[in-house]
Amino acid sequence: MAELRKTAIADVAAARISIRGYEITDIIGRVSFASAVYLILKGELPNEKQAVLFEAILVSVLDHGVSPPSTIAAVTVANTGAALNAAVAAGILAINKFHGGAIEDSMTAITEAATISDDPDEAASVFVSKSKALGRRIAGFGHRQHAADPRTDRLFELARELGLNGKCVLQAEAIEKALSESSGRLLPINADGAIAALLCDLEFPPTAANGIFMIARVPGLVAHVIEEQERNPPMRTVKMDEYEYDGPVNRQLDTA
Amino acid sequence: MAELRKTAIADVAAARISIRGYEITDIIGRVSFASAVYLILKGELPNEKQAVLFEAILVSVLDHGVSPPSTIAAVTVANTGAALNAAVAAGILAINKFHGGAIEDSMTAITEAATISDDPDEAASVFVSKSKALGRRIAGFGHRQHAADPRTDRLFELARELGLNGKCVLQAEAIEKALSESSGRLLPINADGAIAALLCDLEFPPTAANGIFMIARVPGLVAHVIEEQERNPPMRTVKMDEYEYDGPVNRQLDTA
Amino acid sequence: MAELRKTAIADVAAARISIRGYEITDIIGRVSFASAVYLILKGELPNEKQAVLFEAILVSVLDHGVSPPSTIAAVTVANTGAALNAAVAAGILAINKFHGGAIEDSMTAITEAATISDDPDEAASVFVSKSKALGRRIAGFGHRQHAADPRTDRLFELARELGLNGKCVLQAEAIEKALSESSGRLLPINADGAIAALLCDLEFPPTAANGIFMIARVPGLVAHVIEEQERNPPMRTVKMDEYEYDGPVNRQLDTA
Amino acid sequence: MAELRKTAIADVAAARISIRGYEITDIIGRVSFASAVYLILKGELPNEKQAVLFEAILVSVLDHGVSPPSTIAAVTVANTGAALNAAVAAGILAINKFHGGAIEDSMTAITEAATISDDPDEAASVFVSKSKALGRRIAGFGHRQHAADPRTDRLFELARELGLNGKCVLQAEAIEKALSESSGRLLPINADGAIAALLCDLEFPPTAANGIFMIARVPGLVAHVIEEQERNPPMRTVKMDEYEYDGPVNRQLDTA
Repeated sequence: MAELRKTAIADVAAARISIRGYEITDIIGRVSFASAVYLILKGELPNEKQAVLFEAILVSVLDHGVSPPSTIAAVTVANTGAALNAAVAAGILAINKFHGGAIEDSMTAITEAATISDDPDEAASVFVSKSKALGRRIAGFGHRQHAADPRTDRLFELARELGLNGKCVLQAEAIEKALSESSGRLLPINADGAIAALLCDLEFPPTAANGIFMIARVPGLVAHVIEEQERNPPMRTVKMDEYEYDGPVNRQLDTA
Repeated sequence: MAELRKTAIADVAAARISIRGYEITDIIGRVSFASAVYLILKGELPNEKQAVLFEAILVSVLDHGVSPPSTIAAVTVANTGAALNAAVAAGILAINKFHGGAIEDSMTAITEAATISDDPDEAASVFVSKSKALGRRIAGFGHRQHAADPRTDRLFELARELGLNGKCVLQAEAIEKALSESSGRLLPINADGAIAALLCDLEFPPTAANGIFMIARVPGLVAHVIEEQERNPPMRTVKMDEYEYDGPVNRQLDTA
Repeated sequence: MAELRKTAIADVAAARISIRGYEITDIIGRVSFASAVYLILKGELPNEKQAVLFEAILVSVLDHGVSPPSTIAAVTVANTGAALNAAVAAGILAINKFHGGAIEDSMTAITEAATISDDPDEAASVFVSKSKALGRRIAGFGHRQHAADPRTDRLFELARELGLNGKCVLQAEAIEKALSESSGRLLPINADGAIAALLCDLEFPPTAANGIFMIARVPGLVAHVIEEQERNPPMRTVKMDEYEYDGPVNRQLDTA
Repeated sequence: MAELRKTAIADVAAARISIRGYEITDIIGRVSFASAVYLILKGELPNEKQAVLFEAILVSVLDHGVSPPSTIAAVTVANTGAALNAAVAAGILAINKFHGGAIEDSMTAITEAATISDDPDEAASVFVSKSKALGRRIAGFGHRQHAADPRTDRLFELARELGLNGKCVLQAEAIEKALSESSGRLLPINADGAIAALLCDLEFPPTAANGIFMIARVPGLVAHVIEEQERNPPMRTVKMDEYEYDGPVNRQLDTA
C-alpha cells in the first residue's frame, strides 16, 4: 500500500504557496535569495549577521574556472549539443566525495574534534595524533592549487567582524596549527575547511554541506555551458587542462 | 589538433580567483549571492534596484512543493539510496521545455510581440491573432493550478515600485488583455510569464531563462532530497499525487 | 602535471578499432552482443556455455514494468519534454544501493559465506547466525512482489543444464535453507540473489554487478521513454502506482 | 485528475512477468539478449537473419576508446568518487545530437531521399543537390577519425550475406556516390550512416536510433568507469586527448 507522503517544506494550494510557513508573497522582495535558501534548508530565516555570512559563503564558491571536474563534465556534455539542463546535471554529477564533498567531511572532522575537549588546542592535538595513527587525512586542510587560499582569510575576517567566528572556527584554526606542527609543513585551512567551519558555527548539519556547494556552483555551471555553446563549434576536441582567459580584468567595486 | 579553450568567466591562478574581472576577495561580503549570480550570467553587476528585483525573481520560484516533475524525479531517485548530488541531477533533468522551459518560450514570445509595433496593445492584438491562426499557444499565460498566481501580482507590484516595469512588462500585460478578449476566458499571466517579462526588461537573453529557473529551484530540490532520506524508508511506494503538509504554518516576517 | 591516461579496454587508430585485443571487424557478425559485453567487462570472451548463461542473465532483468523507481524517474523526466538520453540518464540515476544494487550486496554476502567453510551448509549456518546477531539483512533473499520469483527457478534450471551451477549457486541455496530454518518463514532466493550467485560462479567481481544490471535494464528504460512520449501528453499527472497493460498477451515462442 | 497509465511493454503480476506478451521464463535461455532488446523496442522478435544483423550492429558501436565525449564525461565524473551509475549517467548525457545522434539524423535523411524516386541514383542526385542548395550537411557521411571506417564495410558485407541489404542500404550507397561526385572528394558512409541504413531496412523508427546507440555503448561506459576507479587516484588532472593503450593485442577468435 502506498503511503501518503509527508513534507514540511512547502504547502501549495490553489491560490497560495508557503515555504516553511511563510507565504511566498510575503518574502518576495523582502528576503534575499540567499536568506530564502537558508530558510528552506534550515527551516528558519537567518538573523541579519547570519544572512551576511551565508551570502559570503555562497559567493566564495560561485565558480572556479574551467578546471574543476564539474565544469569539465558540464562543458563536455554541452559540446555534444545537450540541452542546458542536461549539461548542468552532468556537472552536478561530478560534485562528489572528492570535489565539493570535502566540505561535508571537514564538517564531520571539526565536529568530532570539538567533542574531544573544551580546549580547542588540546582537542586538535589529540585529534591530529589519532588521525595520523589511523592514516587518515583530515579534510579541509591543504589545497592543490592555492598555496594560501585567498578566500579563507576573507571569509574568516568577515566572520570575526560579524562576531560569528564561533567554536567551530576556533577548532579549525587549532587543527591547522596542530597539523602544521605535526607534519612540519604548512597545511592551511582551505576554502572547503573554512566553509565547513562557518557552516558548522551556523549549525547546518554536515549532510547539507554538499547541497550548499551545489547551490553555489550551479550558476557557474550555467555560465560555462552557455559560453561553451555560444563560443565553440560542436564536437571539438577540448584541451581540458589549459585555457586562456579573455574577459575583463582588474575591475573595482563601485562603492560610492 | 585540440584548440586552446577560451573563457571570459573566471580567471584562476595560484593565489587569486577573479569572476568577470572582480577579485573574489573583493566581492565576498560586499555583493549578495544573487548579485554575484547576475554578474556571472550577464557579465555586469546589477544596480541597486535591479539587484532587489533579481533577488525577488529567484525567491519566487524557489520551490513549488512535492508535485512538480523535478521534485518527483529527485525524490524518486533519492529513495533508491542515491547520493544527494545524483538525486538533484535527476531533478534538474526534469527542468525542460514543459517544466521551467516556459519562461524561455514566454521571453521569446514577448520579445517577438514587442517588435510588431511601438503600441503594446496593437502589437498584442496582432500577435494574438497570428498565434491563434497558427494554432500556437502563447507560453506564460494561464496556469494549471493557480486561478490567479499570487506570485505574479507581487512581482509586478515590486517592479512598479522599483520603476523596473519596462517595455516587456507592458507588452506582457497587453498580451494578457488581448488573449482574454480573444478567447473569452481569463488567461492571466502566470509566474513563468511574469518572470519572463521581468528578465526581458533586465535584458537577460532567453537562453539564460532556464538556467535562472534551475539556479532558483536547486535549493528546493536539495531540501526535498534531504527530507526524503531523513524521513522515509528506502524503496517505499510513493504516492506522487497526494501529500500532507506537516510543517509550521502562518509565520510572519519579523519586520521590527 | 597531467598524467597520460592508460587504458586496456580499446585501442582506436585511424583505420582500426580493437576491443580487449580483438579487431572490431573480426567480432562483428561472429560474436553476439552479450558475448561482446562479457568481453569488454571481463577481458575475455565467454565459452559457449558461459555465453548462453550470460545471455539469460541479461534477459531476466530486461524490464520490470512501470513500477520500479528507475522507470518512474525516466518516465517522469520524459514527460517534461526531455531528450531520450536525458530521460534514460534519470532512470539510471535510480539504479542504486536499494534498486539493482542488491545484486552487488548479494555477491559480497555469498562470497563471504563461501569462505567460512568448504561445506556450504555449515558455512550458511554460521553466516546466517552471524548476520542475525549483527542485525544485518542478507541481500538477495525475499522479494517485495513475487512470492516465488519465477526467474530464479528458470535461471538455476538453466545453470544446472549447462553445468554452470558452481560453488556460489550451492552456497546461495544453502543460505536460503538456513535462512528459512532460522526465521521460520520462507525467504527464497530472489532474482537479485540468483543473478548474484550466477555472476559469482562466472567470476565477475561484485563491483561489476550494478553495471551488468544497468546494461540489461537500459533497453527497458529506452522503451518506456519512447512509449511515454508517443502515447501521453506532456506534464500530465502520472499515477505512478497503478497502470493498465494493453499490449499483446499469451504469445508463444515459435520453436519450429 | 491523474490518469491511469497505460503501457504495452511489460505486464508484471505476483508470480509472473511478461515482455511484449512473452513470459519472461519462456524467453530466458531461449532468446539472446540482443533479440530481447529487439523485441522490447519493436514489439516483435527478429527472425534468425535479422537477429544476426542486430547483434552485429550493437557490437559495432560497443566502444570507441577514451576519446568520445561520453567516455570523457563518464570518466571525469568517475574520478570525483561518483557511484558507477552516476558516472554512467553522465556519459549518457553526452549521447546527443552531435555524438550518437547522427544515426537518427542519417535515418531521417535516407528515408527522405528514398521517397523522392524509386531509382536510388536519381533520388540521391536530387537529394544531394537539394541539401547543397539549402547548405545542409547530410548526416552519416564522412568521419573525423577514420578515412574509411572499417566497421562500415564489415556491416554492409554481413547485410549482403544475410540478404538484408534492402532499399535503405542501396539508397545510402547511392547518396555516397552522389555526394562524392558533387563535392569532388570522398565522403564515405561512416559507421553512423551504415547503422542508420541497416536500422532503416530493419524498419526501426528514427526515434529509436539514439536509444539503440545508448544500449550498445553503456557496456563500454561501464568498463571505462570501472577501469578509471581501479587504476587511477581521485581528482587527478586527466589529459583527455592523449592516452596509451596497454591491454592485450592481436588476439584471434578461436573458430575451431
